[in-house]
Amino acid sequence: MTQGMACKRIITDGKRFKRIIDIEQSGKLFLPQGHIEIEELKGIPIGHAFTVQDRTYYLFDCDIHDFLSIGLKRRTQIIYPKESGYIILKMDISPGKKVGEAGTGSGAMTLQFSRAVGREGEVYSYEKEKDFVKLAEKNLRDGAEFENVTIHNQLLEDGIHESNLDGFFLDIKKPWEALDVVLNALKPGGHLCFFVPTTNQVSYILKGLKTHGCVLTEVEEILKRSYKLNPARFRPVDKMIAHTGYLIFSRKVVKGEE
Amino acid sequence: MTQGMACKRIITDGKRFKRIIDIEQSGKLFLPQGHIEIEELKGIPIGHAFTVQDRTYYLFDCDIHDFLSIGLKRRTQIIYPKESGYIILKMDISPGKKVGEAGTGSGAMTLQFSRAVGREGEVYSYEKEKDFVKLAEKNLRDGAEFENVTIHNQLLEDGIHESNLDGFFLDIKKPWEALDVVLNALKPGGHLCFFVPTTNQVSYILKGLKTHGCVLTEVEEILKRSYKLNPARFRPVDKMIAHTGYLIFSRKVVKGEE
Amino acid sequence: MTQGMACKRIITDGKRFKRIIDIEQSGKLFLPQGHIEIEELKGIPIGHAFTVQDRTYYLFDCDIHDFLSIGLKRRTQIIYPKESGYIILKMDISPGKKVGEAGTGSGAMTLQFSRAVGREGEVYSYEKEKDFVKLAEKNLRDGAEFENVTIHNQLLEDGIHESNLDGFFLDIKKPWEALDVVLNALKPGGHLCFFVPTTNQVSYILKGLKTHGCVLTEVEEILKRSYKLNPARFRPVDKMIAHTGYLIFSRKVVKGEE
Amino acid sequence: MTQGMACKRIITDGKRFKRIIDIEQSGKLFLPQGHIEIEELKGIPIGHAFTVQDRTYYLFDCDIHDFLSIGLKRRTQIIYPKESGYIILKMDISPGKKVGEAGTGSGAMTLQFSRAVGREGEVYSYEKEKDFVKLAEKNLRDGAEFENVTIHNQLLEDGIHESNLDGFFLDIKKPWEALDVVLNALKPGGHLCFFVPTTNQVSYILKGLKTHGCVLTEVEEILKRSYKLNPARFRPVDKMIAHTGYLIFSRKVVKGEE
Repeated sequence: MTQGMACKRIITDGKRFKRIIDIEQSGKLFLPQGHIEIEELKGIPIGHAFTVQDRTYYLFDCDIHDFLSIGLKRRTQIIYPKESGYIILKMDISPGKKVGEAGTGSGAMTLQFSRAVGREGEVYSYEKEKDFVKLAEKNLRDGAEFENVTIHNQLLEDGIHESNLDGFFLDIKKPWEALDVVLNALKPGGHLCFFVPTTNQVSYILKGLKTHGCVLTEVEEILKRSYKLNPARFRPVDKMIAHTGYLIFSRKVVKGEE
Repeated sequence: MTQGMACKRIITDGKRFKRIIDIEQSGKLFLPQGHIEIEELKGIPIGHAFTVQDRTYYLFDCDIHDFLSIGLKRRTQIIYPKESGYIILKMDISPGKKVGEAGTGSGAMTLQFSRAVGREGEVYSYEKEKDFVKLAEKNLRDGAEFENVTIHNQLLEDGIHESNLDGFFLDIKKPWEALDVVLNALKPGGHLCFFVPTTNQVSYILKGLKTHGCVLTEVEEILKRSYKLNPARFRPVDKMIAHTGYLIFSRKVVKGEE
Repeated sequence: MTQGMACKRIITDGKRFKRIIDIEQSGKLFLPQGHIEIEELKGIPIGHAFTVQDRTYYLFDCDIHDFLSIGLKRRTQIIYPKESGYIILKMDISPGKKVGEAGTGSGAMTLQFSRAVGREGEVYSYEKEKDFVKLAEKNLRDGAEFENVTIHNQLLEDGIHESNLDGFFLDIKKPWEALDVVLNALKPGGHLCFFVPTTNQVSYILKGLKTHGCVLTEVEEILKRSYKLNPARFRPVDKMIAHTGYLIFSRKVVKGEE
Repeated sequence: MTQGMACKRIITDGKRFKRIIDIEQSGKLFLPQGHIEIEELKGIPIGHAFTVQDRTYYLFDCDIHDFLSIGLKRRTQIIYPKESGYIILKMDISPGKKVGEAGTGSGAMTLQFSRAVGREGEVYSYEKEKDFVKLAEKNLRDGAEFENVTIHNQLLEDGIHESNLDGFFLDIKKPWEALDVVLNALKPGGHLCFFVPTTNQVSYILKGLKTHGCVLTEVEEILKRSYKLNPARFRPVDKMIAHTGYLIFSRKVVKGEE
């Protein structure tokens, strides 16, 4: 766990109230009723309850899901955990792998790739906007466990510096325009994954993948439905997220002689 | 990669035909048209195409998703990748963690926990049926990357040997009857996850979690919708899996003095 | 069309602004920018555009979907059109049929049954709360096309006055407690439909239907997903209704001698 | 009820076995075990049970849902009841309305429009294929309640004979090419509904509707999820229909002077 994550705690009433704090800081944490000095929280062991004004609160360590949900500073829509866990599994990202990504955005997916490839792995992330690079760097300082990420502040079309990558994840507007350069950086058999919000983009990507001879292409959507917690009146919640994006998976292949 | 996985290959026509083979074996692999000697496949580099009777095939390494889908021997319904990636993320399973599980079943989730906790982590899995223990052991030999799994062939109710576990995953019929023993083995703040197919089971679990003072409980369902690949006629496939199971997440807390 | 519906109009900007007005009334209708005298609207033919302060508006007659969505006064959750059209079809409600219902609630379903059974049909609706009876009566005066509805202000358990009904629709808390009295009022082969929000209620209903020998039972849920309207960026909207209720359909049968 | 429907019966074991028969015919009906003379079925009242070889069967009248599901002869994918009930509600189809349709196909939607507009209403359906016209005519003879349908065996582009229609439903491949002729036949404020299987078609329709000044456009999809019937193990079925088609609703408006 990074220095960043190690000093983070989650304070919750077990229901709606959930805050992330840095216990190395001083000051007050305001609760739904009353407040507590952050200094005092240092004395409470992880997973334990405490009471303020007759109301019970709980202190937890900050886990990856908490960090992605409420710790990460964002200026873009991020990939949701319902997708990111699946992406990592489908792309076969595991310790030691080398993964490319574009664009970096807020760094939510970068952070998860970093964690998944571990100490011996490497993550190369391309982002054209300087401001996003800074934002992602801050989020990685706060949340990443390993120093295995390189962010290139450039357009993908200007060239990928790495080669023989195990996988490449694309979350940019026109990923089909970058297919040549991305496939060039990928090892034979390497995994491609695209995340796009519209069906028109999916059609462009499918055309591009076919032109480039990629195979085992799949287009999928992941939906999450949440339920209320009353065991005697069990039922789904009233509203749900209807759409985040389409996931397209594919594989690079080499045909003929090389 | 284990010895088991290292010698496995995927042979596919890029569409419906997909087989997993062991390239250390000898013999013929029968294709939709004709066949090829497995010996010959050794000479084909990963990610490359080859031709048999004028038809193109591709050779890939066997990744975790392939192994779970077509490599794993199963005698039970397994957790699908749409759920397992999300479970690992929500339970905050990462390198070095200690995770408990019951029941082991075919070992699909065991294998994924093993991979996620890595060389320094530990997985303890409880399974009452001797036959499932053997099946899971075979699947772990074939697919696991690390030797970090201990399977206990016993009822969960007869006691958990470990303590201070980071998380516990339950895929058994009446997990609410095992809550005392499971919570005892979990560290304060530890993650619980349940997978059950019916709403009645969810109600029992919700009652049990409330009685045991667990918090941050969530009940969720993950649905995956697949799409056809024609870019000019983009549309969902005709049928989908409508249900695998409900996921229940919760956290152990310690109240009052200890 | 009733007097009520005949004098109702929909004023819209074709996007978010949508109001229902009574053109027999006088006064001002306030628009997103400026206003218009209701008197003036009488001169605009149905389906035509008009302009106020350089902004275009449209005038439509008020159809059943508009009336259910924004015309009906409600104090309860109503059945959504995604369900009600399907209910009417599955219950085989058509001109001339006799349908029972409990509870009346705001009268949204009553109104649709009234319309579906037509001039020669009959709707009998049971509602224990005096206030709901008044509310439903107002909504029927405003929106019903035919005078074919009788509302009984009483508990269903106190007895159903009609017999040999073609179908009975139940949207009450504990419909399984009323099964005896409802089946008694239904003709052999008659259609039952239940609408309940929780899975626990579904289980009670399924048990009751089995005990009472009902057959062809089905439990279903209808989900509606809406899409954004940009043809170059076609995609689902961000949020959707995740749950309204479960629909249970069944049929009364007579066994043995009568 | 038509002569056709009046002599139709449903024979079922209350579970999987469900047959539609014509009780005016003679011959044997083969059951899962044994058989029964159709002549004998005439003596069994609707909604009653009967026994063959110690197994219980039930006799029902044939309702609209049964007829659409198992009575209608089809050579095309038909609109499912989950959509058709909603279409009729959203298009405000009620007794006395005049509705246009293209193409007729097997006549499943034609039949439902016929029933919904009743004795005083009219349905005009356009179908270019002679064979489909014949098929739809057969299905209407068997299942329609009213003689209110006119089928034109011609291309829609060759002109619509009617005008001032209340609504028009399009289930053809390129409905955007017919927008001029369809809007011309529709009354101001009239309802348009399109049913198409692919997102590319939706994009073309959305472009066309914008060009033609139509408003209140909505794109929607209806999904139905079925559940198993065991009250102690309540859960969704394993597989569901993932896609039938997209529904697009819109309204004709008249701008400026006429």
